[in-house]
Amino acid sequence: MNAILKYMRPVAVIGIGKTAFGAFPDRDLRSLAVEAIEHALADGNVAPAGVEAFYLGNFAGPSFVGQNHLAPYVGSAAGFESIPCTRIEDACASSGSAFFHAWQNVAAGISDVVVAAGVEKMTSQSTPRVTEILAGAGDMGGEGRAGATFPALFAMIARRHMHQYGTTREQLAAVSVKNHANGAKNPQAHMRKVITLEQALAGKPVAEPLTVYDCSLISDGAAAVVIVPLERAREFTSRFAKVLAVAQTSDHVALDTKADITLFPAVKSAGERAYKMAGLGPKEIDVAELHDCFTIAEIVASEDLGFVEKGNGGPFAAAGCTAIGGPIPINTSGGLKSKGHPVGATGVGQICDIVMQLRGDAGERQVARHHIGLAQNLGGSGATCVVTILEAAK
Amino acid sequence: MNAILKYMRPVAVIGIGKTAFGAFPDRDLRSLAVEAIEHALADGNVAPAGVEAFYLGNFAGPSFVGQNHLAPYVGSAAGFESIPCTRIEDACASSGSAFFHAWQNVAAGISDVVVAAGVEKMTSQSTPRVTEILAGAGDMGGEGRAGATFPALFAMIARRHMHQYGTTREQLAAVSVKNHANGAKNPQAHMRKVITLEQALAGKPVAEPLTVYDCSLISDGAAAVVIVPLERAREFTSRFAKVLAVAQTSDHVALDTKADITLFPAVKSAGERAYKMAGLGPKEIDVAELHDCFTIAEIVASEDLGFVEKGNGGPFAAAGCTAIGGPIPINTSGGLKSKGHPVGATGVGQICDIVMQLRGDAGERQVARHHIGLAQNLGGSGATCVVTILEAAK
Repeated sequence: MNAILKYMRPVAVIGIGKTAFGAFPDRDLRSLAVEAIEHALADGNVAPAGVEAFYLGNFAGPSFVGQNHLAPYVGSAAGFESIPCTRIEDACASSGSAFFHAWQNVAAGISDVVVAAGVEKMTSQSTPRVTEILAGAGDMGGEGRAGATFPALFAMIARRHMHQYGTTREQLAAVSVKNHANGAKNPQAHMRKVITLEQALAGKPVAEPLTVYDCSLISDGAAAVVIVPLERAREFTSRFAKVLAVAQTSDHVALDTKADITLFPAVKSAGERAYKMAGLGPKEIDVAELHDCFTIAEIVASEDLGFVEKGNGGPFAAAGCTAIGGPIPINTSGGLKSKGHPVGATGVGQICDIVMQLRGDAGERQVARHHIGLAQNLGGSGATCVVTILEAAK
Repeated sequence: MNAILKYMRPVAVIGIGKTAFGAFPDRDLRSLAVEAIEHALADGNVAPAGVEAFYLGNFAGPSFVGQNHLAPYVGSAAGFESIPCTRIEDACASSGSAFFHAWQNVAAGISDVVVAAGVEKMTSQSTPRVTEILAGAGDMGGEGRAGATFPALFAMIARRHMHQYGTTREQLAAVSVKNHANGAKNPQAHMRKVITLEQALAGKPVAEPLTVYDCSLISDGAAAVVIVPLERAREFTSRFAKVLAVAQTSDHVALDTKADITLFPAVKSAGERAYKMAGLGPKEIDVAELHDCFTIAEIVASEDLGFVEKGNGGPFAAAGCTAIGGPIPINTSGGLKSKGHPVGATGVGQICDIVMQLRGDAGERQVARHHIGLAQNLGGSGATCVVTILEAAK
C-alpha cells in the first residue's frame, strides 16, 4: 500500500446476512450463498440490480461439491446481471480476502455498492475426505506428503507453545469452554452445547495435545455483507458500521519454513497495518472475532494482535479475560469451535458477527462497550491473514 | 463502474513473461508459475521486493495437482513478502480476471507495482479426468448432470450457429488451419504443426460437428505481467504498453438459460465497456487474441466484439480476413488451439502475446500495423468475460 491510500474514501457496511451454520444435507452450496446474500441485501435495503461488483470467497467448492466457476454461478442466482463476479480463494481466509477486495473496490471509488460473500458446503463429504481437502491449504508436496493434516500442524504449534511459554492443556481447554458457552447462546451456531473444563480435557484425542474440543467444526454455511461509501451509508440505513481498516498479508505456506511456529508473521503484520490505518491500538478494541480453527490458534492470535503479551495468551484466556464481560471479549459468536467453520464463509461471517455486536443486536451475548470491533481471518497455518476493524455508526 | 472511474490513473504493462505451453511431466505448478513471474520481473526491471500486490489466476489446481491456497504458495516462492497474495478463480477467465483486479489496484492508486499471473498444470491427469474437471466450469447440477462436457456445449453452439447463419464445417476448419499456421511459427506454442483444410475436416470427431482440430489443447504453462502507473513506466522500461481499457462482465453459467446461444452477452457487454473506456471501436484494433477454446468460440467472439457482423464470422475467417496480413489478425500466437490452453494461464498469456505484437517482437508472426491490440478471455460457456485493450508506447 503506498501513500495514495490516504486519499481512499471511507467505507461502511450497510447490510449483513448469514445462514445458520451446521450440517444441512438438503441444502446445496448455491442456495446457502443466495440465502445469505438475500438477507444482506434486505438488511441494507439494496436491490440486486443496484450491486456493481460481487466477490465470493470459497475455499474448495470443486472438491467438496464438484462445482467450480462459483462467482457467476452464485451471482446470477442472486440476481446480479453483467457485473464483475469474482471468486477468491485464500484457504480459510477466502472470504476475509473477498471483503478486503470489496473494500478496496469501494474505497478506491471504482464502485459504490459491492457485495462480499463467502460459502462452503462441507458435510456432504466424509471426515477423512474433508481432512484431505483441507490439507490442500498447506504444502501438499512437503508437510502434506509427510502426512501432516491441519490438526497435526496445529498440534505442533500447541506443543511448541507449551514448551516455550508453559501453556497448559487446561488453558487450551478454557478457550473451548468459553467458545462453547458463547455459541450455546447463538441461535445460528452449529453446536449449541455448554461443556465443562473436565469434558474438554477428557475429549477424544485428535492430534496430541489437541482433542476434539480443541478443533473447529466441519460445517455448511454462508455469509454476506453489502458495502458502500460512508458518505452514502445513511441513504440506505442508520444501522451501518464504518470500516476503519482492512489489511491482508501473506507468509510462506509450509510450517517448516517458519522461524518460530508460536507466532504468525502474517497475523502480526496484518494487525499492525490495520491498527495503523485505523489510528488506534489493541486497547481500543471492544470486541473481537479471532480465527480459532484450533484453540491454540485463538491463543496465538490474541498475542500476535497485542491483546496480551507474547506467551501469556493461555493464562489470559484461563483467567476469563476473553470472556463476555472480560477486558477483551473474544469470539462472542462461539467462534469456529462452536458457531462452526464453513471455511469459505468464515471471514465474512466474523464481520457479520462484529457488526451485530456494534449494533447492539447480540442478545444474550451482547458486550457492554461496543464501539469498535476487530475480525481476524487466517488461511492455512498462517500463510494468509486478513484483519478488519469496524466502528459503530455514531 | 460509476463515474468516479474517470479519475482513475492510467496504467502500463512494463514486464511480460511466459513459459512455453506444452506437456511437461517433470515440472510442477509452482515452478511454472515462478518461471513466468521471474521472466516478467526481469523484463520489467523490477525486484520481487518491489511488488506490492500479487494476483494469481488458477482454475483447478486442487483438482489437477491436489494443491490449494495457491497465491501465497506461489507468491512466497517468487520472493513476495507480506503482501496481499490472492488467487482468483473465474474458470478459463481466471487470469483475465486476475489482470482486471491488478489493473484496478494500480489504477485506483492502491499500489504502484502489481504482478498478475496465471498458471495451470493439466497434463498429469488423464483426458477423461481433465474433461470432468473442466465440466466444473459449467452447471454441474444441470448440464453437467446430463452429461454435457464442454466439447458438447460448444458443439451445440456450433450447430445452432450453422442452423441460424449457414456457418459451415469448412469455415470452422479454416479457423483451425489459420491458428495452426500461426502457432507453427511460435517457439512457445504447444503444437507447432501446420495442417491443411482436408486434415482439419477429416479430424477424429469429438462432439459433432467438432473434431479434434476444433478443440483447444490440454496444456501446462504459466504467464505473468507487471503493471505500474503510466506516469512511472519509463522509470522501468521504454518497452511498456499502455492499458487503454479492461472490463470484466458476467452471465448465467448454464447454457440452457441463455436466450440465444449463438452469442455471448458477457462478451458483448465486456467489449462495449472496453471500447467505451478506451474511446475507440473495433475498427481501430490492429491485432487481437480471442478465446478460441473451440473454433466456433473464435467465430462467435469475432462477431460479438464487432470485428464482423453477427452471423458472418465463418465466411470472414474462411476468406482470410483474420489471418496475419488480413484486416484484423486474430490469434497470431496460434490461439488456444495451437499455442495451448493451460486454463488459468490463458488470460494473462493473451496479454503477453498482445504486448509482444505492440513491441514489434512477434518475429515471423509480426503484424504490420501494431498500435492497438485487444485480448478477450472467456470463462465457461460465456458466464465470465474479460476484454483488455492495450496501446503501444509512443
